[in-house]
Amino acid sequence: MLPHSIRDGYAKAGVDYGVIDPGKLLAQRTAAATAGELLLRGAREIAASRGESAYVVDLGDRYLATVTEALGTKNLVADAVGPALGRTFYDAVAHDTVATILNDLVTVGARPLCLTAYWGAGSSDWFANEERMADLTLGWGAACKEAHCSWGGGETQVLKSMIDPGTVVLGGSAIGVIANKNELLLGSRVEAGDSILIAPAVGIHTNGLTLARKVAEFLPDGYATPLPGDPRSRSFGEALLDPTPLYGRLVEALLDDGVELHYAAHVTGHGWRKLMRASLELSYVIEAIPEVPPVLKYLVEVAGIDENEAYGTFNMGAGFALYVPKAAVPRALASATRGGWTLLDAGRVEAGARRVVIEPLDIRYDGESLAIR
Amino acid sequence: MLPHSIRDGYAKAGVDYGVIDPGKLLAQRTAAATAGELLLRGAREIAASRGESAYVVDLGDRYLATVTEALGTKNLVADAVGPALGRTFYDAVAHDTVATILNDLVTVGARPLCLTAYWGAGSSDWFANEERMADLTLGWGAACKEAHCSWGGGETQVLKSMIDPGTVVLGGSAIGVIANKNELLLGSRVEAGDSILIAPAVGIHTNGLTLARKVAEFLPDGYATPLPGDPRSRSFGEALLDPTPLYGRLVEALLDDGVELHYAAHVTGHGWRKLMRASLELSYVIEAIPEVPPVLKYLVEVAGIDENEAYGTFNMGAGFALYVPKAAVPRALASATRGGWTLLDAGRVEAGARRVVIEPLDIRYDGESLAIR
Repeated sequence: MLPHSIRDGYAKAGVDYGVIDPGKLLAQRTAAATAGELLLRGAREIAASRGESAYVVDLGDRYLATVTEALGTKNLVADAVGPALGRTFYDAVAHDTVATILNDLVTVGARPLCLTAYWGAGSSDWFANEERMADLTLGWGAACKEAHCSWGGGETQVLKSMIDPGTVVLGGSAIGVIANKNELLLGSRVEAGDSILIAPAVGIHTNGLTLARKVAEFLPDGYATPLPGDPRSRSFGEALLDPTPLYGRLVEALLDDGVELHYAAHVTGHGWRKLMRASLELSYVIEAIPEVPPVLKYLVEVAGIDENEAYGTFNMGAGFALYVPKAAVPRALASATRGGWTLLDAGRVEAGARRVVIEPLDIRYDGESLAIR
Repeated sequence: MLPHSIRDGYAKAGVDYGVIDPGKLLAQRTAAATAGELLLRGAREIAASRGESAYVVDLGDRYLATVTEALGTKNLVADAVGPALGRTFYDAVAHDTVATILNDLVTVGARPLCLTAYWGAGSSDWFANEERMADLTLGWGAACKEAHCSWGGGETQVLKSMIDPGTVVLGGSAIGVIANKNELLLGSRVEAGDSILIAPAVGIHTNGLTLARKVAEFLPDGYATPLPGDPRSRSFGEALLDPTPLYGRLVEALLDDGVELHYAAHVTGHGWRKLMRASLELSYVIEAIPEVPPVLKYLVEVAGIDENEAYGTFNMGAGFALYVPKAAVPRALASATRGGWTLLDAGRVEAGARRVVIEPLDIRYDGESLAIR
């Protein structure tokens, strides 16, 4: 039986959303007061993009979107899992850092233009491991290419006394372009009657690794524990490192086919509560749920987390959500299939209080449980 | 007498440029191979901007510039100095994080458009200190406003087991616009015969804090040691926290007045060696040096660092350099004065091997001592 400190909520594993969010709100208010400066540059902000996953500026003839994001603690899993398997996994870690940046950027309908990296290590030695650096670099470049995004450089930094000497903080920033202004996606465009299409997740992605690390500590064989249900009979640790899809390719495929999109959500922290990211008073009713990736199924089982908390914290198989008018669903599904993606027609947006209802699991998240604006 | 470990070079204080730079070079080569992706967005890169302080993309009718940067360890000084003086100094820390981002961005002639923040703490508790959060937030907002830059949000993150629980890694990213394509500044525009104008530094800025912290450890009164020559009779620690100028205001004043600029350099890591950031085979001959801020003068004295190393590592009074045709110097100086800035007509660019020569100090830095491309 695992300790109560693991079972009893994600906050206990080191991430306390209740403490973080008020600071975010203070910052957001102060930030909003700077919007007028854009007028000096002949630009203006899309105020409704504040609180979205990317910030959008109107240059007149087109929109620009931008986001700064960071990976989190997934590279600690690579550090622990890699040696026994004879590879660094920093190609996968790099891929996921790029993915977590760009999957936020594309939620507003932006096409990735360029990306700059932040690599902050706790010691100069960290950068001296040639195999790891090559994996990180080549993985980063490959992910940018896959997303059709130019890698414009970045900052490499050593922060002794701040970052653990054996590790690195990975993040970065990206710019996207919305050349056709009709392609701007915002929460304010969501309407009652819209359908919710879910693009499957392949694993834990970049959210929930703090808990996963805690769980590995208490498993007798740690990360090497065989993962039940894994089609490739791998360990829990290796499956945690599966690379996150770049959902921008999906968004682009649909936009290129002229599919009418209203909104998109990247399902990360707060899990399925992110489905109500839009600030409107609308209910999101889920009628069909995607398969749960084996690594997440095992994680919540071992940790003793109930379904209510699991879906409110992790992606549980839903990596990315698209909100489309009901009439556009057949075209969206066909377009996704042509692009090599599977979309689940998972539910609908309804008039009503802001909440997420997962009918097959009898779960309901009220609006106040997602205080991110 | 201070230990040899402090006197003997900045590498010993925890920052070893020799180890960091080869990894940067590998990343730069891989990054350059992604440039073709921009064509899919109707854009192309300014290849000559790779290795500059900001990456520049040509959108056709205008240029965009972008940079990701981070503060370093200056906030550790605020953490140590603040309690005795009854303030957090995180307003100054925030200002300097914004300054280190934007002072890089404006070197290519870009006008700041918007900025996104990265705040990564080692514990949720870090964000719970209301006074510090308010100072950080309001200082950040004020710096963005001063730079006429919109603060578009950002990422707040807790990285337990990676970042020290008591501290925060501060960084971010910015986008700038070059609406008048003639205003693009690049190293490739520097010419023999150009004058080098130096904008004074006010203190240590954001570079050299690792050594400053080591020095404070060995001073009997630590950060509270009175700073010799400080006009306000402050301590060494308080003077270290003086906010860095936002040199973009200077660049904008000159551009607005139609002053012909060729290039600009933000003097940070590598100190005055940054004056030869341009990759051309040209010599940079300095005939007049600015006054050294008392805090830097004291730092190098106590640490026992000779002038050769001091000027090759710290700003030593030169915060920002502008490269202008000799004929434009009177106009540049007059424009700067009108904008409230003092510029020192410090030297000239000459045909010859790539090197920096500081004639009044008989110092010479050869090209290979700045391997940042």
